[in-house]
Amino acid sequence: MEDVVEKIRSGDVRTVARIIRDIDDGIPGVRETLKALYPYTGNAYVVGITGAPGVGKSTLVDQMINHLRKKGKTVGVLAVDPTSPFSGGAILGDRVRMQRHSMDEGVFIRSLATRGHFGGLTQSTRSAIDVLDAMGKDYILVETVGVGQDEVDVVRNTHTTVIVVIPGMGDDIQAIKAGILEVGDIFVINKAEREGADKTLSDLRLMLDMDQKKYQEGDWRPPIIKTEAIFDKGVNELLNAIEEHRKYLSKRYGIIHLRKNRDRVREELKEMVKSRLIEKVFQILVESGEFEKAVDQIVEGKIDPYSASDNLVLPKIVVPGAKDES
Amino acid sequence: MEDVVEKIRSGDVRTVARIIRDIDDGIPGVRETLKALYPYTGNAYVVGITGAPGVGKSTLVDQMINHLRKKGKTVGVLAVDPTSPFSGGAILGDRVRMQRHSMDEGVFIRSLATRGHFGGLTQSTRSAIDVLDAMGKDYILVETVGVGQDEVDVVRNTHTTVIVVIPGMGDDIQAIKAGILEVGDIFVINKAEREGADKTLSDLRLMLDMDQKKYQEGDWRPPIIKTEAIFDKGVNELLNAIEEHRKYLSKRYGIIHLRKNRDRVREELKEMVKSRLIEKVFQILVESGEFEKAVDQIVEGKIDPYSASDNLVLPKIVVPGAKDES
Repeated sequence: MEDVVEKIRSGDVRTVARIIRDIDDGIPGVRETLKALYPYTGNAYVVGITGAPGVGKSTLVDQMINHLRKKGKTVGVLAVDPTSPFSGGAILGDRVRMQRHSMDEGVFIRSLATRGHFGGLTQSTRSAIDVLDAMGKDYILVETVGVGQDEVDVVRNTHTTVIVVIPGMGDDIQAIKAGILEVGDIFVINKAEREGADKTLSDLRLMLDMDQKKYQEGDWRPPIIKTEAIFDKGVNELLNAIEEHRKYLSKRYGIIHLRKNRDRVREELKEMVKSRLIEKVFQILVESGEFEKAVDQIVEGKIDPYSASDNLVLPKIVVPGAKDES
Repeated sequence: MEDVVEKIRSGDVRTVARIIRDIDDGIPGVRETLKALYPYTGNAYVVGITGAPGVGKSTLVDQMINHLRKKGKTVGVLAVDPTSPFSGGAILGDRVRMQRHSMDEGVFIRSLATRGHFGGLTQSTRSAIDVLDAMGKDYILVETVGVGQDEVDVVRNTHTTVIVVIPGMGDDIQAIKAGILEVGDIFVINKAEREGADKTLSDLRLMLDMDQKKYQEGDWRPPIIKTEAIFDKGVNELLNAIEEHRKYLSKRYGIIHLRKNRDRVREELKEMVKSRLIEKVFQILVESGEFEKAVDQIVEGKIDPYSASDNLVLPKIVVPGAKDES
């Protein structure tokens, strides 16, 4: 174990790749590695980038890597792609990006596709962030495809959340408004060379201002930045905005560590307890044959699924102050 | 309890509405009602209808209700809309539809928005289906917004799954292909009066045929139906295709009862065990204060979240053959 930890900390790419694959595949043993790595986490700055398919997130991330590298920063990228639930593999569309940075030791790019494993995508992403963090990357960029609940959950677990839209998405902005406005720390209008960029900017500004009415003095007010990622325009501005947000967080919360935020820690612990609980109890129920027996009884019409789940679960839980009742 | 069951069975709209709201809100007591209703379920035919926003699902469902009513069938509709995770309320966009059928006792329409409650959207939907089933509705139409994993899970829990697309969605079909092709029993190209309907038809046909190479003789081959729901065109054809699929299922699996399919029962029981387990254990952890204490320790840097979750979970589980070890 110490050997694995040392290899990860020294940036051994093969070891890191294997651990992240184990996380993605839900291999139980990986928990022990994550425990051992934990003391070495908390140093990276984590940026979430989300938006609908086609807004140019990958190109933007590619340019961000470039700029960060020029500043001498090391970068880890997690491309989270759950759009292919049945095939089980992540599609990292932009292979060009991987090739371009593949010879650069300061950049590490991996994709995550986990669906259906206990704990889900949010937890897998968080664990993968821990690994890249322990690996010593200065910045970790978490790119998610789509704008569903899962993606929102993933980007919420970052320091700075960047929401990417393109001109003419007015209706879509409206549709995703409720979920998106609240999680965005910075908004980007990419492909800003297209017609309608100013209209999108003013629409978005209006919605944000309405949303901000409930804000207090001193709260962060999400800036909107126009970029043309493909022409490398506006990317530095975006990085400056991220730096501003970092300073804001640091000033407001003292220390930049995701696990210093009680709400975040509570959310994370809740999910970890859930996944651990399910994993352990299912192992018992499956090995004892109780689960399949209950399935039989439901199919045969002998019991309803609501009662069957009660019968399976309740005897497996230690109730405080009720010893020896079994 | 008997009174509630009788009221639901006799079609008392207020009681049914209340129970469905309780399901949506995750009120624990509703489980007992569901247990008592269970013997009266298994008679309805459940159709799932999904597709991207804007394809005209609501109009299609509205026309389906009309046609089914003309045939003397009673109809329950569940509009499942989790797109608004933060506001907590379901948006049922098409209020016209509700108005049109609001005076018809043979139609019952409700929306579900559950997010974040233990068990999630799939289980809430299934429980709501149970209620409409026990209420005596002949057909239950489950309409979901979006094409994410949650929506796929919801429509999989039906007898017949209808996937709705519109002309010119070629790229989108490609994008959602992996998840969608496998769950669709019937495909509908709505707004077929638009340009490109034949191209979409042939694209879809091609993809389905490629997918069907692995099919065995006698397997169901999903038909593709062109509809113009707004002009009431093709809707009868769709209902005929649903009827064909129903006959196929009946011939192949004998009896039309969702809880006679082992795979479905297994999936359902797994989810119910999960939600029951989490509900019970969290209650204990929160009431005892153990959970908040662990959050404190993580924030203070005294323990990692991986170990903390182990410490919370493992002592709560009754391990077989390990009595008195606590």
